[in-house]
Amino acid sequence: MAPLALAPRVAGSSGGLEGSDKRGVPEVDKLIECVPNFSEGRRPEVVSAIVDVMRGQGVTVLDVHSDAAHNRSVVTVVGSPEQVLEAAFAACREAARLIDMEQHRGEHPRIGATDVIPLVPFQGTSLEECVGWARQLGRRIGEELGIPVYLYGAAATRPDRVRLADVRRGEYEGLKEAIALPERHPDFGPARLHPRAGAVAVGARPFLIAFNVNLACEDLGVARAIARAVRESSGGLPAVQALGLQREDGSVQVSMNLLDYRRTSLPAVYERVVEEARRRGVEVSGSELVGLAPAEALLDVVRHFLRAPELTADQVLEVRLWHAGRQG
Amino acid sequence: MAPLALAPRVAGSSGGLEGSDKRGVPEVDKLIECVPNFSEGRRPEVVSAIVDVMRGQGVTVLDVHSDAAHNRSVVTVVGSPEQVLEAAFAACREAARLIDMEQHRGEHPRIGATDVIPLVPFQGTSLEECVGWARQLGRRIGEELGIPVYLYGAAATRPDRVRLADVRRGEYEGLKEAIALPERHPDFGPARLHPRAGAVAVGARPFLIAFNVNLACEDLGVARAIARAVRESSGGLPAVQALGLQREDGSVQVSMNLLDYRRTSLPAVYERVVEEARRRGVEVSGSELVGLAPAEALLDVVRHFLRAPELTADQVLEVRLWHAGRQG
Repeated sequence: MAPLALAPRVAGSSGGLEGSDKRGVPEVDKLIECVPNFSEGRRPEVVSAIVDVMRGQGVTVLDVHSDAAHNRSVVTVVGSPEQVLEAAFAACREAARLIDMEQHRGEHPRIGATDVIPLVPFQGTSLEECVGWARQLGRRIGEELGIPVYLYGAAATRPDRVRLADVRRGEYEGLKEAIALPERHPDFGPARLHPRAGAVAVGARPFLIAFNVNLACEDLGVARAIARAVRESSGGLPAVQALGLQREDGSVQVSMNLLDYRRTSLPAVYERVVEEARRRGVEVSGSELVGLAPAEALLDVVRHFLRAPELTADQVLEVRLWHAGRQG
Repeated sequence: MAPLALAPRVAGSSGGLEGSDKRGVPEVDKLIECVPNFSEGRRPEVVSAIVDVMRGQGVTVLDVHSDAAHNRSVVTVVGSPEQVLEAAFAACREAARLIDMEQHRGEHPRIGATDVIPLVPFQGTSLEECVGWARQLGRRIGEELGIPVYLYGAAATRPDRVRLADVRRGEYEGLKEAIALPERHPDFGPARLHPRAGAVAVGARPFLIAFNVNLACEDLGVARAIARAVRESSGGLPAVQALGLQREDGSVQVSMNLLDYRRTSLPAVYERVVEEARRRGVEVSGSELVGLAPAEALLDVVRHFLRAPELTADQVLEVRLWHAGRQG
């Protein structure tokens, strides 16, 4: 290869070589992610039909995951807010047509055919905007489909509806009667369950990253102690949920959800687990990211460990290509 | 937020939550990168005209960088091998029409209007394939445009043409006479410079990553010693070029090219510089990636520091979106 005439370089300036240079990426359009959960994980034709109506609204379907034991499917889509709202509404209508909650059995807690619709800011959009869109979508589902809607997460109208577990209390079966109680009245739609579709939780939240750190240790107590030290609910890191778990091979794991990687980043949570483990004389043997993460969340790791604070997502070739593709 | 019913998870399995799951990405199409350098950095209308003929062949233009002092522009495109070969050929013809090497002055060594055309494997393509395509492109430029072509890099036919600096020896002006010498005869095209376009180097190489590590130190000798320890040519890391440089603020830097991040990764080179610096009692103050890098090269950093060997590029949301977009 060429002995390149290296000149002093700073990020963003030219090296005068073959190498290319980062440039301002043009204004990007607004995109949100939506991860609706449907109470059907055993009939693939039903899941396909629901996914197809979403795709018909122009969203990009990134992932479809069905779980037979849970009898539940999780669909991940990205699109403009308009596309996503239309797709979620159409999916909700289709699910009400194809899924009968009276017949539904599965391990996962749920209240409806479309069980939950989270809107997630992704590009050029804020959590606050997603709250507004969630309320708009919830109102439409309630009024046009006659399905009771509970706003949850950042879109919740009451503190006791922020958590999905609270909204789902009693599940479909229990909610049949409980919905008549004033404190369980939905935010939109009738105060009675839809005869087939039940009810739906519609909300807004930041991107959720599922991240596990494995320990070179078989003592579940250690994993649980580290989880306690790390999770927000017991005084640990903001926007982190954590549990200590035993894995099939006997080793233990700290299994975490990062509810907002802008508040607690991947490297921050990793370093904290390493530190807590070390304090207990235990080594970290590895980690795993479950599912997807935005480039920014992974670049946090690069920026931290390489001490490269100026690194940006538009320096990632594929991100640049994706942007270029969207501009046509 | 919801207190998620965390279950033991392994990468690739369902958490049974809202979170999505990684799935197999469908077969991807073949893509290569091409980073032609043109001997024009002062007349934007000429650069635009050249870029436009490339874009007309369907490639995605990722970056155009013009440098007035070098009087040189670097264009970064990605496309199918067919698109890229057509685009490079058309650009070469356009540059011969618009740039007169007799009039060209600039600081950067060069031999022609289109000075160098590197083909770079990117997705579903190998360096060996790029060598074949470089030779095919070189032959066509030589035969149809009458411009002498030197094959370089992995496409070189002789060891003394692997390095661009050897190919460029004497530059445009010196090559006018030297090209008549048997050892300077081109691989394709006539053994005389094209009257306006001069000659062109066409080659293949892996993706080049420009990466600098800054030291908390003002002693240029230290930066140079570390560069010597790190670069391949003095017994350091494979496929690494390195120089010690003084920055404008007085601090020093190890400025590197990673010529093949699959042989020596970003984290490997970073850790080595940190170690060499520490050995000399110097701290690393930061680092910077100059220009673009493929997601895989940055994920090497994440995999290394988080000890997460199973992390894949299709877990990056934007990479998934880019793939989804290409599938229409």
